[in-house]
Amino acid sequence: MTSTSKHTLVLLRHGQSDWNEKNLFTGWVDVPLTDLGRKEAHRGGELLVEHNLLPDVLYTSRLKRAIVTANIALESADRSWIDVKRSWRLNERHYGALQGKDKAQIRNEFGEDQFMMWRRSYDTPPPALDDASEWSQVNDPRYADLGDNVPRTECLKDVLDRFLPYWESDISVDLAAGKTVLVAAHGNSLRALVKHLDGISDDDIAGLNIPTGIPLVYELDENLKPVNQGGTYLDADAAAEAIQAVANQGKK
Amino acid sequence: MTSTSKHTLVLLRHGQSDWNEKNLFTGWVDVPLTDLGRKEAHRGGELLVEHNLLPDVLYTSRLKRAIVTANIALESADRSWIDVKRSWRLNERHYGALQGKDKAQIRNEFGEDQFMMWRRSYDTPPPALDDASEWSQVNDPRYADLGDNVPRTECLKDVLDRFLPYWESDISVDLAAGKTVLVAAHGNSLRALVKHLDGISDDDIAGLNIPTGIPLVYELDENLKPVNQGGTYLDADAAAEAIQAVANQGKK
Repeated sequence: MTSTSKHTLVLLRHGQSDWNEKNLFTGWVDVPLTDLGRKEAHRGGELLVEHNLLPDVLYTSRLKRAIVTANIALESADRSWIDVKRSWRLNERHYGALQGKDKAQIRNEFGEDQFMMWRRSYDTPPPALDDASEWSQVNDPRYADLGDNVPRTECLKDVLDRFLPYWESDISVDLAAGKTVLVAAHGNSLRALVKHLDGISDDDIAGLNIPTGIPLVYELDENLKPVNQGGTYLDADAAAEAIQAVANQGKK
Repeated sequence: MTSTSKHTLVLLRHGQSDWNEKNLFTGWVDVPLTDLGRKEAHRGGELLVEHNLLPDVLYTSRLKRAIVTANIALESADRSWIDVKRSWRLNERHYGALQGKDKAQIRNEFGEDQFMMWRRSYDTPPPALDDASEWSQVNDPRYADLGDNVPRTECLKDVLDRFLPYWESDISVDLAAGKTVLVAAHGNSLRALVKHLDGISDDDIAGLNIPTGIPLVYELDENLKPVNQGGTYLDADAAAEAIQAVANQGKK
């Protein structure tokens, strides 16, 4: 990719996690990558090198599947030395009471409409997760600075609302300074970012899936608006295949 | 380890690197870990867990052998999510014209006295590395903020001089705030730190070696002075063995 714009943003959704493989709702539960997920991350780093896209700074969530994906990709791209910033604002959507549940089972129990509403509705969150649940994050030390504001459930709109202040305060500042920024995050935090960047409507965002492990590159103009609307996947064929696979999740 | 002090500092020297294994002077050359080095890092993380020493923030150099050691150790300790700060001020001592040279060969060529002077003298740096050398860092983008001040050689005093401002501005601030700080760095940048902490004389520091991959823990009082002078290795037997091995470097 030859860049003529001043500002380059690279999005990387984490590779396959243990609960992706097991088809469970994950959200803020901190599950590890599978071996396949680690391979995806390694390949993601190779794609960066092949396209001469060398990040100057890394942003990640507080979840290990995004962090380890970034570590592996940067090691494979020989850019381990760049600065790192982490924030819960890049975390996956909190899936509320669905966290830890089997996707296919929820689909059978509640029906396709309710299932898709929970998965893809812009502004309807699932039921809140009980603080006593083993899948709750209310006492997790990594979110101590959130006090009692640790989410119990979120819809995509909630993710956008907590992501945008961080975009403004940190990520866009690094982009404006001319840094190539790598954001290693999650299906829904990246959908929120892409919705903002591409100006996608609340309805249309439901149909947008982002595949794992394939860098998605945005060239941005001086107002940090995309020159290449929708971004460019560094492996377009693999992305098309993977997008279909994500869309099929829960349809066992 | 049961901590009664308020401030805990954990030092971790990177695991075996490719050039440790090949017995070459490394300095600022960015060589990877060996498989043994990765195993040492993993074990380092296990030791943190076994001793309930959970870092809140990570400091590393800009060199991958320290960064990857920290990544592996934190993944093994399930603390990948902590904040990360990197600085060239934690880099290994720049070994000047010795970078890339075989230690045993230098010892044979220049004799034991000169060899030990270059390795252990507090204030005599080796000859400067030529900017045209393949082992020079003058055009490395990671040091762009240093401008023309990228080191061409350093003695341990130089390391201390560039480390101390960072200790004051960043590391000690996190310690004073009550954070458990992990510093993943190098034989000589950690010697500089330990010299400062323990008040070791310019002469005595020559005899101090820090083994790879074994966390060295300092409990600090309210003035950030060591309660446990000399620190405590989390695996004392392995540390004693390894210190002897480091002392024997170059004696092939």
